[in-house]
Amino acid sequence: MTRQELIKIIKQKKSYLCIGLDTDLEKIPTHLKKYDDPIFEFNKQIIDATKDLCIAYKPNVAFYEAYGSAGWKSLEKTAAYIGDEHFKIADAKRGDIGNTSARYAEAFFNQMNFDAITVAPYMGEDSVTPFLKFENKFVILLALTSNSGSKDFQLMEENGEHVYERVIRKANNWGNADNMMFVIGATYPEYFHDIRELAPDNFFLVPGVGAQGGDLIEISENGMNDVCGLIVNSTREIIYAGNGEDFAEKAREKAMEVQKQMQKLLS
Amino acid sequence: MTRQELIKIIKQKKSYLCIGLDTDLEKIPTHLKKYDDPIFEFNKQIIDATKDLCIAYKPNVAFYEAYGSAGWKSLEKTAAYIGDEHFKIADAKRGDIGNTSARYAEAFFNQMNFDAITVAPYMGEDSVTPFLKFENKFVILLALTSNSGSKDFQLMEENGEHVYERVIRKANNWGNADNMMFVIGATYPEYFHDIRELAPDNFFLVPGVGAQGGDLIEISENGMNDVCGLIVNSTREIIYAGNGEDFAEKAREKAMEVQKQMQKLLS
Repeated sequence: MTRQELIKIIKQKKSYLCIGLDTDLEKIPTHLKKYDDPIFEFNKQIIDATKDLCIAYKPNVAFYEAYGSAGWKSLEKTAAYIGDEHFKIADAKRGDIGNTSARYAEAFFNQMNFDAITVAPYMGEDSVTPFLKFENKFVILLALTSNSGSKDFQLMEENGEHVYERVIRKANNWGNADNMMFVIGATYPEYFHDIRELAPDNFFLVPGVGAQGGDLIEISENGMNDVCGLIVNSTREIIYAGNGEDFAEKAREKAMEVQKQMQKLLS
Repeated sequence: MTRQELIKIIKQKKSYLCIGLDTDLEKIPTHLKKYDDPIFEFNKQIIDATKDLCIAYKPNVAFYEAYGSAGWKSLEKTAAYIGDEHFKIADAKRGDIGNTSARYAEAFFNQMNFDAITVAPYMGEDSVTPFLKFENKFVILLALTSNSGSKDFQLMEENGEHVYERVIRKANNWGNADNMMFVIGATYPEYFHDIRELAPDNFFLVPGVGAQGGDLIEISENGMNDVCGLIVNSTREIIYAGNGEDFAEKAREKAMEVQKQMQKLLS
């Protein structure tokens, strides 16, 4: 999917909601256990119930790897089921030396046809650029993450420049708004205005709204650009909104609540 | 495997060699293609030919993921085949918020019984500590990596402290030499002395000897502590030493060459 196509579906759906598919066997409704692949079945029902309300899905790969090759299969089936109408993000936080990053790109972009992959910037340029060689695919680089540990290294400062700011500045030399996005945690709403100045055209993937304490209105007001420029992720509040046979319906209700808020913020 | 057991096998084998299993279908000898799982077959023959010469094996997970769930299966079989006599490192460079890192730990420590996993520190404390909850398992945290991009962020400096130094200092508050190691690239031999002062007891996993230009003698002289304290990795020079039917024999010759050098450096 291109940046223009992403912008188009945001306008059409009046939504910039991404739903995280961090599907955990211990958290899904027990009636799903009877299926051969309960994780895929859960995802399928969540997708069916929410697909008109969100513009992106984001499986976190860890939750699939935890079940070995069977889990990897559930991930492959999930990616295929999402299809091409949504922006598909592999939340994998990969990054390794050049030839190795190229293998990760192969796994997520070619094998599973994801549109984007989250990448950790610690190893620098040659760990990031191999992902940029794929047409109409995006790197979503960790910049300022939503968790408490983000303070440990991302906020270190050299000559007035934080580590996360250098990540953004350098990354926009390696790529551009058509192939590079940044993870900016919703737990730092007061930083969004300055970060938007540093990266006026890039989309930001924003985790941390809801359970982690981030505020949708504040980050939207401070972080939007004229084509929206935000993909706001919600996981637990939506996919685990219910725990009974009506879990998908509950997820839909919650997703609709968020979409309605987004519709207001977009207008 | 505990730190004491690792020290013991280093003494017994007079070796601190780790062999990287970055197995790439396009690089393995063509006669292996007839097997159902050529990647596993290649690994098996390399392991059989080198197991008395090295103390650790390190599959880089990217090379398996690139083949989807089938590749994941090859990784599972490889981990099982290595067994318990070697230190088994999953070179995965994972790291995510707490509950997610715990899922990665489940995948590599419990499902596949790896002794250690490489972890990227960018997200800070709560992305690293979930891996430390597993007994007799190790985090190998990226500190100063061997690639050219290591200069981009790892060498940023705040109040005289580089990012990679803060990583080491903080990480030794989260863990200790019994559950925490560091990746220090062989391409920075002049840094080893100072880094050893900062982390006197931790093992260092050292990539970048050989193809990437690092020098075994220099990093050993500058980086060893009184229990060796180094695990030096070699990948391409060993596993791709030959490309014919005798590839495993060629790998053995190359591994033996390195082991002989190590034997001298240990005495």
